[in-house]
Amino acid sequence: MSKSRVTREDALAFHLEPTPGKFEIQATVPMTTQRDLSLAYSPGVAVPCEEIASNPELAYDYTNKGNLVAVISNGTAVLGLGNIGALGSKPVMEGKAVLFKRFADVNSIDIELDTEDPDAFCNAVRLMGPTFGGINLEDIKAPECFIIEQRLKEEMDIPVFHDDQHGTAVICAAGLLNALHLSGKKIEDVRIVVNGAGAAGIACIELIKSMGARHDNCILCDTKGAIYQGRTEGMNQWKSAHAAKTDARTLEDAMIGADVFLGVSVKGAVTPDMVLSMADNPVIFAMANPDPEITPEDAHAVRVDAIVATGRSDYPNQVNNVLGFPYLFRGALDIHARGINDEMKIACAQALADLAREDVPDEVAIAYGRKLTFGRDYIIPTPFDPRLIHRIPTAVARAGMETGVARRPIVDMDGYEASLKSRMDPTASILRGIHARAKAAQSTVVFAEGDDPRVLRAAVLYQRSGLGRALVVGRESDVKAKLEAEGLGDAVRELRVVNAANTDHLDTYKTFLYERLQRKGQDRQDIHRLASRDRHVFAALMLAHGHADGMV
Amino acid sequence: MSKSRVTREDALAFHLEPTPGKFEIQATVPMTTQRDLSLAYSPGVAVPCEEIASNPELAYDYTNKGNLVAVISNGTAVLGLGNIGALGSKPVMEGKAVLFKRFADVNSIDIELDTEDPDAFCNAVRLMGPTFGGINLEDIKAPECFIIEQRLKEEMDIPVFHDDQHGTAVICAAGLLNALHLSGKKIEDVRIVVNGAGAAGIACIELIKSMGARHDNCILCDTKGAIYQGRTEGMNQWKSAHAAKTDARTLEDAMIGADVFLGVSVKGAVTPDMVLSMADNPVIFAMANPDPEITPEDAHAVRVDAIVATGRSDYPNQVNNVLGFPYLFRGALDIHARGINDEMKIACAQALADLAREDVPDEVAIAYGRKLTFGRDYIIPTPFDPRLIHRIPTAVARAGMETGVARRPIVDMDGYEASLKSRMDPTASILRGIHARAKAAQSTVVFAEGDDPRVLRAAVLYQRSGLGRALVVGRESDVKAKLEAEGLGDAVRELRVVNAANTDHLDTYKTFLYERLQRKGQDRQDIHRLASRDRHVFAALMLAHGHADGMV
Repeated sequence: MSKSRVTREDALAFHLEPTPGKFEIQATVPMTTQRDLSLAYSPGVAVPCEEIASNPELAYDYTNKGNLVAVISNGTAVLGLGNIGALGSKPVMEGKAVLFKRFADVNSIDIELDTEDPDAFCNAVRLMGPTFGGINLEDIKAPECFIIEQRLKEEMDIPVFHDDQHGTAVICAAGLLNALHLSGKKIEDVRIVVNGAGAAGIACIELIKSMGARHDNCILCDTKGAIYQGRTEGMNQWKSAHAAKTDARTLEDAMIGADVFLGVSVKGAVTPDMVLSMADNPVIFAMANPDPEITPEDAHAVRVDAIVATGRSDYPNQVNNVLGFPYLFRGALDIHARGINDEMKIACAQALADLAREDVPDEVAIAYGRKLTFGRDYIIPTPFDPRLIHRIPTAVARAGMETGVARRPIVDMDGYEASLKSRMDPTASILRGIHARAKAAQSTVVFAEGDDPRVLRAAVLYQRSGLGRALVVGRESDVKAKLEAEGLGDAVRELRVVNAANTDHLDTYKTFLYERLQRKGQDRQDIHRLASRDRHVFAALMLAHGHADGMV
Repeated sequence: MSKSRVTREDALAFHLEPTPGKFEIQATVPMTTQRDLSLAYSPGVAVPCEEIASNPELAYDYTNKGNLVAVISNGTAVLGLGNIGALGSKPVMEGKAVLFKRFADVNSIDIELDTEDPDAFCNAVRLMGPTFGGINLEDIKAPECFIIEQRLKEEMDIPVFHDDQHGTAVICAAGLLNALHLSGKKIEDVRIVVNGAGAAGIACIELIKSMGARHDNCILCDTKGAIYQGRTEGMNQWKSAHAAKTDARTLEDAMIGADVFLGVSVKGAVTPDMVLSMADNPVIFAMANPDPEITPEDAHAVRVDAIVATGRSDYPNQVNNVLGFPYLFRGALDIHARGINDEMKIACAQALADLAREDVPDEVAIAYGRKLTFGRDYIIPTPFDPRLIHRIPTAVARAGMETGVARRPIVDMDGYEASLKSRMDPTASILRGIHARAKAAQSTVVFAEGDDPRVLRAAVLYQRSGLGRALVVGRESDVKAKLEAEGLGDAVRELRVVNAANTDHLDTYKTFLYERLQRKGQDRQDIHRLASRDRHVFAALMLAHGHADGMV
């Protein structure tokens, strides 16, 4: 999938318009008449209040609790930005909230808590419990994230899930299941190196151990090297739990003969020599963001038998959390779960792995611009696969029911799966189809009103989205000035400005227009002036001569 | 305005369908393509994060903070229900959230906090500060509500507003301004009795004092009678602040010669004798919910010169908080206010009072089914008045700017007013117009598919909404059974069930249908069978004979 260019200006405009931020609230009930208000508020609302007060479980029927997840952060470990504080992290948390909605129809709101103290953080979240059906913790630094999640899981009766830990671990596990399947190895036998002992690294090693990997086959490494039994420097209780009996002292040592490398560390942490020292058919998940521990190109250059995954959308096998958290919570919410346990996470990973082994629907292949067939370059489903919404939550819900965390088990699983199929708004997938076809066509579009900043913005967006080529009718100096005024100065080099003065075809256009219009008794000079001065006529003439495929 | 009937079943169905609860989250940005996701989340989202981290004010540009209000409660004083706990209060808080959206396009979410401890409550709310543009406290019992609001106002840099206190006070003040205007009295001169020394009562007396009412002209009463200087029983610091120099010991004493009675107490607290003892043109705001301290009928029976307001929508002059909080927050948010101060509250009250003195648009009169002209029966605007959205927030914003609470003052007030005019979704007012016309027409509608529970529900709703008369085609016993299964057993007496067996017109119908169809070669018996057995044909025949105005 080609990577479309995202500039600072694009990112800021996306967040500023049409309204600041990324989501809004909409009523799901009529609010038109006095009667509607009497039902939504006083006096009618007293009835569900009384019902819930006498039977708390009814909150799932009469309020939005059962389909509402809070994305909560204190902004201490945001993306690659580090500790930027609660307010600074808000765009990320809003983004997570809209991903929940987009992929699994889970309503979600962000809450940013202005504290680095785990006690204060936990107290605030615990008190909010009645409001939500689940809590998604996000971008909290280690080791506080372990303390916070553990305590809230004990104190709350709804799922509490730190996505940086378990989201990554689940998708990683899904990919690992398929990578081992392809290389004919068993998880009980393989030697695994996990590099990075923060939130994601610890969660990955824990999950793969609970899936069958053996303790002394797994070596966890941090910036100080391998974590071996007896190491004292830079340790904490979470690292200690995974200290292995090993002679390896460095990452380089650990990689010799390893079957699997799971990296949640930094760019360049893995060298070609390390890859060369790994076992046959090595599995390399280089998940550091935004740049992997080693690029797929560099890994394959030394080992053609490597199965490589990264965190990026512009390489095959993207380990993308959006494949996990929306569906884990969808399944958990639909059984009114008390929590999300290991069995549910493993069921999610297994369902994702299974899905990748099946034939891929045409619409997915079109959107990705290439054929996707189970194999070394496709071991993990892609985020826009329409089967995810009904395949993954069902597996999660079933695992939750079997392990006793369901407060309201689903009786009719087939009916549940059918309801999930029809749950998502079809508009999104239709729009995606149109977008994919437009991208495949790579049309040249001429934007006639090059003097209008909104049109210039659209032209830039068209081109930067990779849809095709944008031509703008106007004077070069004017277009340049207007783009600069819009904060899009660097787009001047990307757009082609066309006008009567810089075309080779002006005479052809004039003659063509004269032949068409002379019968209506207009004079030649007027018609020639029209061709060169009216930007709509000029654009239409380009279209008529096949110098553009479309016109705006 | 006629009061439409709201049953327990209606209220529960309203909250259960189409989805549990009353609102959902919707993305305001495109979420279709990989590029969209790259802008909404990693990597694009890092740009607004960095901008906000370096300049916190930009959170108003790049996140939804500036148009997001939290409705927060612990459920200790819910409507007339008392302390039903955090979870039990959730339907009320969700209702408040949708009112914010409906009336002022303020996005709002509910947060229920599971604690009765003011410290724990304040800590949790304070930490959430970065998330929101304002905090609306709701249904927290006195005196904790005073402590909580005061502390949060000091500790937070966004508006914190306890609507039970100030919302009621503001609307009450608006009505009072106009009532005094009509009776030619000045607020500095009038003697005022406030009955009820809880959240609303204390806030009312404080606000009218800051509007010019004199301390010793205002007597606050509680269940133990007048609060006079020197009283020791059942006092607290908030009551003490309003202890008056007075000989009055009971409410009855206080009412003698009073110009104004403001009641936020209980049904029946005011007797006709008390009203009789008041001054000329007495102002009586009997705002106890759901039943007033004295009904307007009873007050007018002893004093034709009384100006009466209540909290109810089925009497004139409803003191309804929905006239205040949406617009107070709209104005406060739009200047990025640090708080909502007394000047802003008074500006809101004055703007509401001014609006009621102006001519009322036709659409409002139609919706209310009566002409509204400034006078004793119309001193407060009605909630569906479309001028509220651009008249009230402008006044609030201006007052905020003048008193220095605006972080980003509005430069172009005309432009701001114009933007408010176009802000609300026009669908709602169009729907209200249709609804009002339907209600005025009082049509008889025949619902043909009386065997379908959904159709029965619609028929009941049609009739209970006061739109007209609903006829249902079906067998009486079957309709009854199905209504009972739907929890609508008591609707059997309300709907009229029609069928071939109970109509007086069957022969007419049969003859009519035979005359119409015989030319097509159908036989008489078949046609008669059609008329009596096919419910759609039967319903159409009713329509053709003017026995119904419409058919579903």
